[in-house]
Amino acid sequence: MAWSLEKLNRSSLYNALGIKLTHLDLDRCIASLTPEPAVCWPDHQQPHGGVLFTLMDTTMATAVLSGFEPGEGNCATIDLSIQYLAPAREAPFVCDTRVERRGNKICFVRGEILDAQNDAVAMAQGTFRVMRK
Amino acid sequence: MAWSLEKLNRSSLYNALGIKLTHLDLDRCIASLTPEPAVCWPDHQQPHGGVLFTLMDTTMATAVLSGFEPGEGNCATIDLSIQYLAPAREAPFVCDTRVERRGNKICFVRGEILDAQNDAVAMAQGTFRVMRK
Amino acid sequence: MAWSLEKLNRSSLYNALGIKLTHLDLDRCIASLTPEPAVCWPDHQQPHGGVLFTLMDTTMATAVLSGFEPGEGNCATIDLSIQYLAPAREAPFVCDTRVERRGNKICFVRGEILDAQNDAVAMAQGTFRVMRK
Amino acid sequence: MAWSLEKLNRSSLYNALGIKLTHLDLDRCIASLTPEPAVCWPDHQQPHGGVLFTLMDTTMATAVLSGFEPGEGNCATIDLSIQYLAPAREAPFVCDTRVERRGNKICFVRGEILDAQNDAVAMAQGTFRVMRK
Repeated sequence: MAWSLEKLNRSSLYNALGIKLTHLDLDRCIASLTPEPAVCWPDHQQPHGGVLFTLMDTTMATAVLSGFEPGEGNCATIDLSIQYLAPAREAPFVCDTRVERRGNKICFVRGEILDAQNDAVAMAQGTFRVMRK
Repeated sequence: MAWSLEKLNRSSLYNALGIKLTHLDLDRCIASLTPEPAVCWPDHQQPHGGVLFTLMDTTMATAVLSGFEPGEGNCATIDLSIQYLAPAREAPFVCDTRVERRGNKICFVRGEILDAQNDAVAMAQGTFRVMRK
Repeated sequence: MAWSLEKLNRSSLYNALGIKLTHLDLDRCIASLTPEPAVCWPDHQQPHGGVLFTLMDTTMATAVLSGFEPGEGNCATIDLSIQYLAPAREAPFVCDTRVERRGNKICFVRGEILDAQNDAVAMAQGTFRVMRK
Repeated sequence: MAWSLEKLNRSSLYNALGIKLTHLDLDRCIASLTPEPAVCWPDHQQPHGGVLFTLMDTTMATAVLSGFEPGEGNCATIDLSIQYLAPAREAPFVCDTRVERRGNKICFVRGEILDAQNDAVAMAQGTFRVMRK
């Protein structure tokens, strides 16, 4: 795989929220979140649930993309179910995702987000459409 | 209800993303999204799926809060399932949500996001915990 | 459409559970459930949640199939999220489902189950893969 | 824990479908499915998706109940999201579920169903309400 995390991390979205991809292998991606204060709510330390979701969705999507060479394919979220297990109070957060089944057209992915104490704050299942270019 | 949309809309999160609550009745909330370029991806016109999710989650949560007077209660997302029906290309987007069942402890909410052509780009179901103070 | 509800209703699964398809139009299907006592739990009047799910899934799938002539295509559930709004105590139950977006490869479907008092006991979102033969 | 699997397995629902609980520890339950022909569809070997869902839901619920002594508490499914990764062709199936977070009022549970080749055919996330009597 010739994916450059540094290049992927130049996303303005990631910077606006505080997301950083840290690890990428075939079918597995890990990212961290040190939330920007502007996207915390109701508390200045606590990322909004939508920020945790965005962390999950982008990490999962990158795990899906790991099955392609850069430029060779693309993916889109079909649907994603997220559970919030506990308030997300202790940054930084780590999101760990795996492609559980990679099909030609559809990938099934699971992930979880842990806080700085290693306690789970969110779990999710996502379904992604994959498109070979 | 004495909720002030103007006050709710002062959220830094809403401003960072481009969200604005526009309508609030008992068990129903509507919001619009004119996405900030920084949170669009992969395209400068197209809000990231996480931004659509955040629009959905905050609009649903406000619909849940409509059952309380301001300061009287609170809510938290237990889980939320979102489907992405089509690429979200035509801003502004409108998110319309309803509490389908309001319990003492749990609320069940449904919502959808339409684009400027009135076509659905996302649908969701959420479960919220409610806490009377 | 030349689909015969009578023929579809000969399914041994439907008979074992108490499911009957009652209405089929393009993108919409309605079914009823008068649950067999053997599949009620914990109460002899109350269908197990899995029976309500099966009612939902089969009604949604039939709504998806309505876009094909009989024998022309097929479908499979990719994923389905169901919420249980209230205990399902008052049979018969009616399940009403609609295809919200019909794509060439994927259909997005919504449904709800009402009890004999017309109160919602379950809501769901499903994603289906469609295959033209 | 004084739960008796033998007693739990006397359920008429389990017998009608072919479900058998095989292992119960605190926060973990395993069950097997040898589907009855009447609940297979479209094929006589292949359990309907609703039967796999019922296997998942009952196994998860039993994992939730493991936190109580028999008669001490109860639980109800709030919502459940299931993904179907592959056709379920090779019986018997094994469903393995774990409570990922046990709260006083809500439990979050994850599970998966493997076929006789140890390949995953379904994954799910469920949210359960718990009630101490």
